[in-house]
Amino acid sequence: MPLPNKEPKLIELEQRLSEVNDIESVVSLLNWDQATYMPAGGAAARGRQIATLKQIAHEKLTDPALGQLLEDLRPYEANLSYDSLAASLIRIARRDYQRAIRVPSEFMARLSRHQAAAYEAWSEARPANDFAKVQPYLEKTLDLSQELASFFTNWQHIADPLIEANDDGMNVAIIQPIFHQLRQQLLPLVEAIAAAPAIDNSCLHQFFAEQEQLSFIKGVIFRLGYDFNRGRQDQTLHPFTSKFSIGDVRITTRIYEHHLEQALFSTIHETGHALYEQGIAPELEGTPLATGTASSVHESQSRLWENLVGRSRGFWEWFYPQLQGTFMRQLGQTSIQQFYRAINKVQPSLIRTDADEVTYNLHVMIRFDLELAMLEGSLAVQDLPQAWNERYQKDLGIIPPNDTNGVLQDVHWYVGLIGGMFHGYTLGNLISAQFYEAAIVYDPEIPVEIERGNFQRLQDWLKLNIYQHGRKYTAQELLERVTGNGLSIDPFMNYIRNKYGYLYNLKF
Amino acid sequence: MPLPNKEPKLIELEQRLSEVNDIESVVSLLNWDQATYMPAGGAAARGRQIATLKQIAHEKLTDPALGQLLEDLRPYEANLSYDSLAASLIRIARRDYQRAIRVPSEFMARLSRHQAAAYEAWSEARPANDFAKVQPYLEKTLDLSQELASFFTNWQHIADPLIEANDDGMNVAIIQPIFHQLRQQLLPLVEAIAAAPAIDNSCLHQFFAEQEQLSFIKGVIFRLGYDFNRGRQDQTLHPFTSKFSIGDVRITTRIYEHHLEQALFSTIHETGHALYEQGIAPELEGTPLATGTASSVHESQSRLWENLVGRSRGFWEWFYPQLQGTFMRQLGQTSIQQFYRAINKVQPSLIRTDADEVTYNLHVMIRFDLELAMLEGSLAVQDLPQAWNERYQKDLGIIPPNDTNGVLQDVHWYVGLIGGMFHGYTLGNLISAQFYEAAIVYDPEIPVEIERGNFQRLQDWLKLNIYQHGRKYTAQELLERVTGNGLSIDPFMNYIRNKYGYLYNLKF
Repeated sequence: MPLPNKEPKLIELEQRLSEVNDIESVVSLLNWDQATYMPAGGAAARGRQIATLKQIAHEKLTDPALGQLLEDLRPYEANLSYDSLAASLIRIARRDYQRAIRVPSEFMARLSRHQAAAYEAWSEARPANDFAKVQPYLEKTLDLSQELASFFTNWQHIADPLIEANDDGMNVAIIQPIFHQLRQQLLPLVEAIAAAPAIDNSCLHQFFAEQEQLSFIKGVIFRLGYDFNRGRQDQTLHPFTSKFSIGDVRITTRIYEHHLEQALFSTIHETGHALYEQGIAPELEGTPLATGTASSVHESQSRLWENLVGRSRGFWEWFYPQLQGTFMRQLGQTSIQQFYRAINKVQPSLIRTDADEVTYNLHVMIRFDLELAMLEGSLAVQDLPQAWNERYQKDLGIIPPNDTNGVLQDVHWYVGLIGGMFHGYTLGNLISAQFYEAAIVYDPEIPVEIERGNFQRLQDWLKLNIYQHGRKYTAQELLERVTGNGLSIDPFMNYIRNKYGYLYNLKF
Repeated sequence: MPLPNKEPKLIELEQRLSEVNDIESVVSLLNWDQATYMPAGGAAARGRQIATLKQIAHEKLTDPALGQLLEDLRPYEANLSYDSLAASLIRIARRDYQRAIRVPSEFMARLSRHQAAAYEAWSEARPANDFAKVQPYLEKTLDLSQELASFFTNWQHIADPLIEANDDGMNVAIIQPIFHQLRQQLLPLVEAIAAAPAIDNSCLHQFFAEQEQLSFIKGVIFRLGYDFNRGRQDQTLHPFTSKFSIGDVRITTRIYEHHLEQALFSTIHETGHALYEQGIAPELEGTPLATGTASSVHESQSRLWENLVGRSRGFWEWFYPQLQGTFMRQLGQTSIQQFYRAINKVQPSLIRTDADEVTYNLHVMIRFDLELAMLEGSLAVQDLPQAWNERYQKDLGIIPPNDTNGVLQDVHWYVGLIGGMFHGYTLGNLISAQFYEAAIVYDPEIPVEIERGNFQRLQDWLKLNIYQHGRKYTAQELLERVTGNGLSIDPFMNYIRNKYGYLYNLKF
């Protein structure tokens, strides 16, 4: 029962938004099922079903009656505090509405069709090392990305509306100087590490049977706080997190039997995303506020758990004896210090998703710079592979031997847009360090508790400061509230210098 | 690309119907996921998501523009042959439209809410043997069932519109005399069997490990023709079949480790439903024709495979050596004849779903008669348990010791309506025998091939005569086409008398 004095137009707004939210959640389930259990024969109809539901959601989201309702609610909203649930709901719904009505339905349908075709072309081109095959698709993707940007006004850089779609308030003018600083500080560090003696991580590359890995990992994420009553874990080709409601947030895992670190850390990564979604305040359920706020903040949570927690020495003080117990034959003779060094080995490599914490952001910044150049028109798609390889040589000192392990490696440009996605990975790393620093200032017992296998205090802080708010605040608003500062590279660089200075015995 | 001369209004009709079909298929997936993999925490949001999609499907199905389109297409339809895809599409779509617009949206929502509450009450009442708890819910269900019927006109019996919803053209006037004949012939047969020496089926009640059962059953249904590229098998509390497209028809199984026959025959049963759906002509995909035509015909397919094929001696000539190989310790000393007798043991029992072929229809007819009496107003819900027990004593010679194993056993009345469902089970049995007789007349090699483990000839016949047509024809039209006759009990009774006369050494 709504309260008797509840604004009727707010009730109607909630009702309309809840419908949109239901349909979008169902689309997520259709995608999840497609990646987990759907038989091959279901693909054609599934594509059609997803398109139908997306179309209906788009119609409902751009219904002029919704726009009118949001206008009518302005005086009501003016009397509410910015932080209140109702004001936030109206504010975010208006943002979504105004973004949605700028883009014609016809364009959305055209884009979807092209993305499906481009993805299929890429799926064949990547293993075949055949960039020429996807080049025309990518050229069209570039056209469509520019066309999408053209529907928006008041931007400084053509990539801005694409970035804003995933990260409200973020833009090239904010990101570029930060990335510039970060790159300047990372490059000499990578060089210094390359000159130091390499870490031996062969202990990770023995045979670790699938079932034992799965059961160990399940124990880990349960301990971290992942709620299996409100989620589940399945196996897929590529790990991902999906959310159908605050009470149903699922993750997936892929096991490599000769790479212990892969499933372990990618599952902790997805668990970080899932903890965020599971931690949203229940009263936000069914509204557009009931999801993580921005790609950068979402990534900060996955990376915080994967790296700052999961690759810390303290974490393994608790878990390593259990891991040794599970894999006694493989790890019985490996000390915790050897293991800790192994999981933190730094080595310039070709594949972003396999990169260590130090070199990872270099991979991201290469993509970000190249996509800006393409959007600006200063880099033609046909010259992309060469530009990619040159930049890998410059930043990481290695040249991809083929496009499969080069410009064809990430699905993003081929299934989505050129622009708007990659920056979030590096911002996420920066923000993860900013948040974790703030958490430890607030509660210095957090790392001590982690050594004892207790994650509740960290969870409590994250829930209170980040998770519960869902999409109420933008990334920058959240940073301001939590750290008192804007985006900064300092906490991340301090963390990296301390950790890897110690691991590689570097002098700064 | 549509053909250049294709009627534009037909294209628009297909487009609108395809949307409705997509949404309804997605609702099926939401239900499937809920029964298989959804974590408990997802239930509340899932209920809301299903309600939202059902509401949207109902709006689209009752859109006056759709009605207008169907009117506009009348002259076009008049020039088509009745059997053509286009004429069938228009005919069935009109039937669905005209049925849907009679029922107010407000009623549908009210019914759904009540059904959810009634199901929950039943879930608690059944194990607690507490009929009083569900009585008020069932009384309301009866009111709603009568109210639903009242939206329709031109019926002879109040149950007719409820029956027609699942089985177009079927009604009480057709069913009642047939059920009467059937009961008159079954009762003395059950009595004669009861007087004969009982069959020993203890060989089925040893320990049969879950994994071995699953893998044997998987081999069986693959051999029967279930296409795993267009389906999958999962485990659930209650077995069911669901269909998201012709390319994605899934079944579920429940294993009982001390009842070999349970999973085996219930999975073959679901496979029968699935073969029907997988066998629909691909050009029907996305239309309302792309599903089995009526509950009775659907059940004829599940029962044909489960009983006429799966419980035949010939079937086990092929599979029994494999079953023995899987369970050598348990069945190594049991002859095929002993096994064949065990899986066909007749014994009056309390639970419909566990009943043998001979007594099964008596269970169904008890329910059918009682629901008619309730709908007519001659039996009050509060007197239902007593009426139930009296009828069990009369027809089966046993009195349920409690309501858990009596009137509370089937979910149908508690999750659905009173009326419209049960008749299909017995009609399905009758029709299965009619179809199988026609198949063997057409191709006498079918039973011989089955003994060799070849099911293709039977499949071919079913596909050609039944599966491919989807919903094109009503049950009676299909019977007429396939057998040249209407509904009849003779093939079923001949089958039963021959088989059980032999098994129990009876003289007729």
